[in-house]
Amino acid sequence: MEEELRALLRDLDALKQRPDPAAIDRDMSAEVVDSNPYSRLMALQRMGIVDNYERIRDYSVAIVGIGGVGSVAAEMLTRCGIGRLLLYDYDTVGMTKTDAAVQTLSGINPDVALESYSLNITTVKGFETFLGSLKARSSDGHNTGVDLVLSCVDNYEARMVVNQACNELGQTWMESGVSEDAVSGHIQLLVPGETACFACAPPLVVASGVDERTLKREGVCAASLPTTMGVVAGLLVQNALKYLLKFGQVSPYLGYNSLKDYFPTMEMKPNPQCSNPACVQRQKEYMQLKPARDAAAKAKMEAEASAADEYSLPEGLVRELPNADSYQEPVAPVTSGAIDDDDLEELQRQLDALNSS
Amino acid sequence: MEEELRALLRDLDALKQRPDPAAIDRDMSAEVVDSNPYSRLMALQRMGIVDNYERIRDYSVAIVGIGGVGSVAAEMLTRCGIGRLLLYDYDTVGMTKTDAAVQTLSGINPDVALESYSLNITTVKGFETFLGSLKARSSDGHNTGVDLVLSCVDNYEARMVVNQACNELGQTWMESGVSEDAVSGHIQLLVPGETACFACAPPLVVASGVDERTLKREGVCAASLPTTMGVVAGLLVQNALKYLLKFGQVSPYLGYNSLKDYFPTMEMKPNPQCSNPACVQRQKEYMQLKPARDAAAKAKMEAEASAADEYSLPEGLVRELPNADSYQEPVAPVTSGAIDDDDLEELQRQLDALNSS
Repeated sequence: MEEELRALLRDLDALKQRPDPAAIDRDMSAEVVDSNPYSRLMALQRMGIVDNYERIRDYSVAIVGIGGVGSVAAEMLTRCGIGRLLLYDYDTVGMTKTDAAVQTLSGINPDVALESYSLNITTVKGFETFLGSLKARSSDGHNTGVDLVLSCVDNYEARMVVNQACNELGQTWMESGVSEDAVSGHIQLLVPGETACFACAPPLVVASGVDERTLKREGVCAASLPTTMGVVAGLLVQNALKYLLKFGQVSPYLGYNSLKDYFPTMEMKPNPQCSNPACVQRQKEYMQLKPARDAAAKAKMEAEASAADEYSLPEGLVRELPNADSYQEPVAPVTSGAIDDDDLEELQRQLDALNSS
Repeated sequence: MEEELRALLRDLDALKQRPDPAAIDRDMSAEVVDSNPYSRLMALQRMGIVDNYERIRDYSVAIVGIGGVGSVAAEMLTRCGIGRLLLYDYDTVGMTKTDAAVQTLSGINPDVALESYSLNITTVKGFETFLGSLKARSSDGHNTGVDLVLSCVDNYEARMVVNQACNELGQTWMESGVSEDAVSGHIQLLVPGETACFACAPPLVVASGVDERTLKREGVCAASLPTTMGVVAGLLVQNALKYLLKFGQVSPYLGYNSLKDYFPTMEMKPNPQCSNPACVQRQKEYMQLKPARDAAAKAKMEAEASAADEYSLPEGLVRELPNADSYQEPVAPVTSGAIDDDDLEELQRQLDALNSS
């Protein structure tokens, strides 16, 4: 939470300093030549979609589970030029799955720092290594910790472990899943203390129409479609890019029902009675920091309004700052309250729609 | 159109014959072993999503444009075990793009019959070869023509050429596109005579928020995101699978606005004043065959109702056939009428929503 506040204040400082847009660091060239793999990505900046695409070089993303969704997500982030990618899986395909992925991905884009963790996060030892690696300084000393964790695992137990680690660290993560019948899936943003955690709302576990605890049973083979995997991985990484590079709107939850091309969305508040103590602790911290967060948000809005007045108005045109009465309070973030009936009804409605396909 | 009617009657015959589900041809093994790449696909059949997944071996799909969307779509169809894949592109990457794709795809799944057409469909000679190849018998003599054309080109002119070819042949196709700023895209189903063709409704050209005629200008580099490409390719091939294997609902039009995770849908009737003569001719044929189509659909529904009574009710339980009064007329397919005002207003609303992102 303090980290979040510091990030807000850093944004505020950056805004006040207003760097000259012409003086952008050219590490990631926008030059349009075949030898430059980034020209079509840097075009996002020239077209005004992203303020500073090159910041992607500063970010670290952890991907847990290098299966159908995880391997496609890793390739997408690699092609996007992510700074550092941490890969976790316990499985082998001749060599370990994570080493095989590193080999493939470094061939696609050698600029990405790749870290291979072949371990089972659901074991005590695996969990410790997992937790440590999420906090660790990167090999070049440049990054500390990770900016985002993407869960691409295929079972309930592993999701609960990722949830536990991220709640303990106050680490924002995104969850993804594909149903056992391969024709629906979902992604979800989880910000410890701010949104529902994976343990807050048991119904989410079955949002894709299947009890995930039944997956990976002996002799049972779940269906799999490269199309569904590709769509879910694409939606997941697109939202990861929006989150990291601060453009568009990050979806709190997005379902994909492929039989009807139906994409349900919803938002889930954290549950104060959540069974996960780390989640409850993060919720308390989030509430305690509300006044400081509001003040920072207000200062940021005022600085933006002032900057807009100073720089964006046509010459000779003057606009007054909003006065105290017309100034709109920033919307208070959700900090408390059980999942209310409306939420549950809406959730049930969407689950029914998903399952009735 | 006659072809469509024959297909309906074939379905009817198949239903009457009711093959024993236990006697499914095992060309595509459902056995769950690592050496069987189809077990996770055949699970779709076991789970009741698809009636007969193995039919995918009988289908031919043409992909025009092997770029960001086309290459991913080709890989997905290859992994799904499509029978035959025809690839079209004029570009080279050392070798021709289509040959390079064939090399990669045959490594992924050697069971797929791959055909490489390195040509420019917008030239007179290229168009003739394109048209001929869509009608031709496959090398093993098994398939005649293609079952579906996927357009994955990146410019207006090429789309109009695919439209022309498919209108002339009465060939169902699906169109796809990604906007110049890389953050939105769409897919669309086009059935000559039955739905709007690409020339019927000029606004569709700019549905993704960009005048596509401005693409590919000298010195202009459009943005590109592997995420948007992956999502559009996934939605496209998923709908192709639904169309070919007859499950779920095929979307007539599906947009993807990645900034808001908004997925607009709509349906477009053909325009009787369409500037494309082949489209107008297909519309006439479609109208002429309406009575026969209705009769076939009614017979099929009655056969299904009868089959359900005979075979699906628990022993000892009897259900009456619906009487003439309660029998529900099959919904008459849309056969005529200009795009009405409601359609246009809805289209405008959705375009506005897409563009205001």
